[in-house]
Amino acid sequence: MKVNGKPTRTIWLSNDSRTVEIIDQTKLPFEFKIVKLKTFEDAYHAIKQMLVRGAPLIGVTGAYGLCLAANQNNNINFIKNAYDHLKSARPTAVNLSWSLDRMIEIAFKSDENNIVKELYEEANKILEEDVNFSKNIGKYGSNIIEKIFKKKNRTINILTHCNAGWLATVDWGTATAPIYTAFNKNIPIHVWVDETRPRNQGSFLTSWELREHGVPHTIIADNTGGHLMQKREVDLVIVGSDRTTYTGDVCNKIGTYLKALSAYENDIPFYAALPSSTIDWSIKNGSDIPIEERNEEEVSKIKGKNSIGIIEEIQIIPDNTSVKNYAFDVTPRKYITGIITEKGICGASENEILKLFPEKKL
Amino acid sequence: MKVNGKPTRTIWLSNDSRTVEIIDQTKLPFEFKIVKLKTFEDAYHAIKQMLVRGAPLIGVTGAYGLCLAANQNNNINFIKNAYDHLKSARPTAVNLSWSLDRMIEIAFKSDENNIVKELYEEANKILEEDVNFSKNIGKYGSNIIEKIFKKKNRTINILTHCNAGWLATVDWGTATAPIYTAFNKNIPIHVWVDETRPRNQGSFLTSWELREHGVPHTIIADNTGGHLMQKREVDLVIVGSDRTTYTGDVCNKIGTYLKALSAYENDIPFYAALPSSTIDWSIKNGSDIPIEERNEEEVSKIKGKNSIGIIEEIQIIPDNTSVKNYAFDVTPRKYITGIITEKGICGASENEILKLFPEKKL
Repeated sequence: MKVNGKPTRTIWLSNDSRTVEIIDQTKLPFEFKIVKLKTFEDAYHAIKQMLVRGAPLIGVTGAYGLCLAANQNNNINFIKNAYDHLKSARPTAVNLSWSLDRMIEIAFKSDENNIVKELYEEANKILEEDVNFSKNIGKYGSNIIEKIFKKKNRTINILTHCNAGWLATVDWGTATAPIYTAFNKNIPIHVWVDETRPRNQGSFLTSWELREHGVPHTIIADNTGGHLMQKREVDLVIVGSDRTTYTGDVCNKIGTYLKALSAYENDIPFYAALPSSTIDWSIKNGSDIPIEERNEEEVSKIKGKNSIGIIEEIQIIPDNTSVKNYAFDVTPRKYITGIITEKGICGASENEILKLFPEKKL
Repeated sequence: MKVNGKPTRTIWLSNDSRTVEIIDQTKLPFEFKIVKLKTFEDAYHAIKQMLVRGAPLIGVTGAYGLCLAANQNNNINFIKNAYDHLKSARPTAVNLSWSLDRMIEIAFKSDENNIVKELYEEANKILEEDVNFSKNIGKYGSNIIEKIFKKKNRTINILTHCNAGWLATVDWGTATAPIYTAFNKNIPIHVWVDETRPRNQGSFLTSWELREHGVPHTIIADNTGGHLMQKREVDLVIVGSDRTTYTGDVCNKIGTYLKALSAYENDIPFYAALPSSTIDWSIKNGSDIPIEERNEEEVSKIKGKNSIGIIEEIQIIPDNTSVKNYAFDVTPRKYITGIITEKGICGASENEILKLFPEKKL
């Protein structure tokens, strides 16, 4: 997507085809800073310190991390060592394991003369695959927006929660892919961006993305969506998903459930957009998905720009007060109109999902 | 309620029985500062600059403002002038108009010898009436908590949104009155305090109140309540109300509607606690209540304590990004289990409300 008018991805190779460049997302939305990764230690640091975030982007960064290792030293033991180290950067990130496993397999099959070239080729492939997944989600999802537009023939208001944007992938994003695709097709749209407390990924990342690409949007407090839906100021909700059961229950950023309830009560279509890699084929009931509890400081402190332009963190609760910080919630399938995947759109039910992915039949 | 172990109200007379003292609520939760009001101009400033807030407390402060005016100069023209000025401090605050009208009537009936004494007597009466309203809400509402406790025989988890606490009244509060009353009766309770973006009245005020009085509580992001309800970690929701239709639709701080939906879906009792003065006997449908739109800066900026203990405001959205800031939403009666008033508890319907207030029969 565009940044400052220029098509940009979240990760790319420098002109030397070896150095990796990324956006330091910890600096957004206040500064757009590009960081060069020259060693696998740089890649480890970028993942660990969350300069890159979002499952797909973490996976791609890990893959390039292994390329950088081979570039430093093409000895397989050195590379295996780097593989272990990179994997430990975010131990629970499934995509990181998956991409590193795929890369190390190539490394084991390669000889020392070709290993660097072959690893870069594989990483480039992983990257392009991710872009294509997002593009397809965009293609299918934008049809939904187009259909609503043809019926209403006015600007279509889409609400999204958190950041399932291109910043979490290589390009296009998941929940945002239909939005960017519709925008590029000149369908008039406007996006309601949930602030998404406590980490504010909506106001920090989604709104930054949309602004840079030129998509009309407005930030709202998470509390506001219900009222907007009652007033028919939302035509469609699209969110991402961190994990979706094969029965259609959607685990996503905390607060998604409340928006789904409100959309359901007000007859507003509610879609989750996700690459099929996030479908969990082993869990039947969303309520069995373990919900991560995160640091209290995500709620008690917040980062922003002070009056002299310095980024600083302030405390926004009283001293000595406890906080509970669940990161996700689960929206039962009942409230979900459909799931937008790279293979097409389906209803949120075991039956419909398996129709789209028949190879997964249990 | 207690502050630092000492029973405290939001407004009281100094030992001279003339000077008025208030808590400067703009300094909370980071500093507990008492301010003395010696002139009606001081009272005007306190209302206008929101050192005092909450409809009942604004009304009482206005009443004492007129006492201070009489104390400065017992000439009726001077007092009438002060009345006009005080009324303009928050022109849309119904309680302020109401209490000032009641006071000026006394002033007009008084003679110069008795006017100061009579005005203070009337203001004291208004203050005590407010305390009694809250106490009664607490009495009736705590019965609900006690009933649930008797059934579950464990700590009862109550969720509240925004600050309908004693800080918004003279003492006890509205939504918090049942909580304090139950706590004082030694019923084991724990309160989930919604942060309440964008003005954070939950994390700034409600949590401060509860901490000072010793009531166990935990701050959560507004997004979290739905998940907690799904997990049965909420036994009861109690919120306040800015305006309630005589048919039982409840207008309250933005985000209340989302919590009500979630409580309804999860079979959790949802109550609004309110003095009957906030029932609007002229509006039938909640959707006809005009919803105030407030300053964008309430969303785009936030106040807190920086690393060296200084209170400062930072920007928490990207530059040049628009914001929509609705202050309230309306929860349709369908989702409300009951309304707790100073006269007792009733269902959220025209029929039930009129049974409690038969004198209002249309």
